[in-house]
Amino acid sequence: MSGMARMEIAVYPLGTGNPDVSAEVSRIFDALERSGLEYDTTVAGTVVEGSPDELFALARALHEQLFSGAVRHVVTVMRIDDRRS
Amino acid sequence: MSGMARMEIAVYPLGTGNPDVSAEVSRIFDALERSGLEYDTTVAGTVVEGSPDELFALARALHEQLFSGAVRHVVTVMRIDDRRS
Amino acid sequence: MSGMARMEIAVYPLGTGNPDVSAEVSRIFDALERSGLEYDTTVAGTVVEGSPDELFALARALHEQLFSGAVRHVVTVMRIDDRRS
Amino acid sequence: MSGMARMEIAVYPLGTGNPDVSAEVSRIFDALERSGLEYDTTVAGTVVEGSPDELFALARALHEQLFSGAVRHVVTVMRIDDRRS
Repeated sequence: MSGMARMEIAVYPLGTGNPDVSAEVSRIFDALERSGLEYDTTVAGTVVEGSPDELFALARALHEQLFSGAVRHVVTVMRIDDRRS
Repeated sequence: MSGMARMEIAVYPLGTGNPDVSAEVSRIFDALERSGLEYDTTVAGTVVEGSPDELFALARALHEQLFSGAVRHVVTVMRIDDRRS
Repeated sequence: MSGMARMEIAVYPLGTGNPDVSAEVSRIFDALERSGLEYDTTVAGTVVEGSPDELFALARALHEQLFSGAVRHVVTVMRIDDRRS
Repeated sequence: MSGMARMEIAVYPLGTGNPDVSAEVSRIFDALERSGLEYDTTVAGTVVEGSPDELFALARALHEQLFSGAVRHVVTVMRIDDRRS
C-alpha cells in the first residue's frame, strides 16, 4: 500500500509511585482513536499503520497525552518501519 | 503471573540488496517455535512472554539466527517490560 | 533547562546490498546541522537535546533524509526522554 | 575488530514516586564497571562495545541490577548493532 508505514510505540510514565502504570498508559487510547489510524495493542505496546507523517504526528500526540499534573517524566520508545515501492 | 515479563523484538538484516527482508526475518520463527514461549507477530515485530532469563536467551538466539552467508550485519531492537509482584 | 528533552535515534537503510551503511547514514548529518540542536554521535547512534517539538520534527526529517533512489526501506528507532519541572 | 558489536541501552524503573530516577539508574554503573567492557554514558543512555555474547549478558545484568525492594517494575530498551566481516 502506497504511503503506508508501520510504527511500534510504547509510552512510559516515570515517578508515578505505583509499579502499575496501566491507568496512565490508557490515556493514549483517546488519542489513538482520534487519529483514525488502524492500530493494535499488544502485551508490550501498540502498533499502528499510516503514512510517515501521520505516524510521527501520532507519536508526538501520544507522548504529550501522558503528561498530567502527576506525571512529569515520560519516556516514549518507538520504531518506524517504512518500505516504499 | 510470577516470573512473567514481556518482550518486544525486531531483527533487521542490513545490506541484503533487497528492500524486502521478509525471507531473512522469517528465519527467526524456527527459533521462536523451539523456545516454547508464547509469542505473537505484529505488523512491526514480535512480542513474547516469558521469564527474563528466557526472554534474554531468546533474543540472543533470534539475533544469531539472522546471520548467514549473505547476511553479515544485523541490528536487533528490543524492549523488556518486567513487572514483579 | 525548561523544555529540554533528550532523544536517542538511529536510522537504518535496508536492502542496500552492502553491509556497510555508513555512507547512507551519514546523510543525516546535514539535517542534524541544519536543526541547530545540540547533538552527539555515539558508536551506536545519535543523541540530541531540544524541546519535544524540535526532537519529533528532527526525527521526521532524519527518517526522510535516508530515502533516495537506492534506498526504499528505512527503519528509524528512537526514544525520547522528557522530564518537565 | 572481529567479534565487536555495539549496544545502546537504557533501563527505566517505573513506579518510583519521583520523576528523578537518576539514583536508581546509577546502580547500573557497578555492573558496567564489573563487565570490563568499554562503555560511554550519553545524555540518553549508555553505549557499550563487546562481543554479542558479552553484550547480551551485560544487558541481562543491567536489567536485574535495577530491581530492589523499592523497584518492582523495570523496562529495558536496547539495540545491538552487529556487523561481522
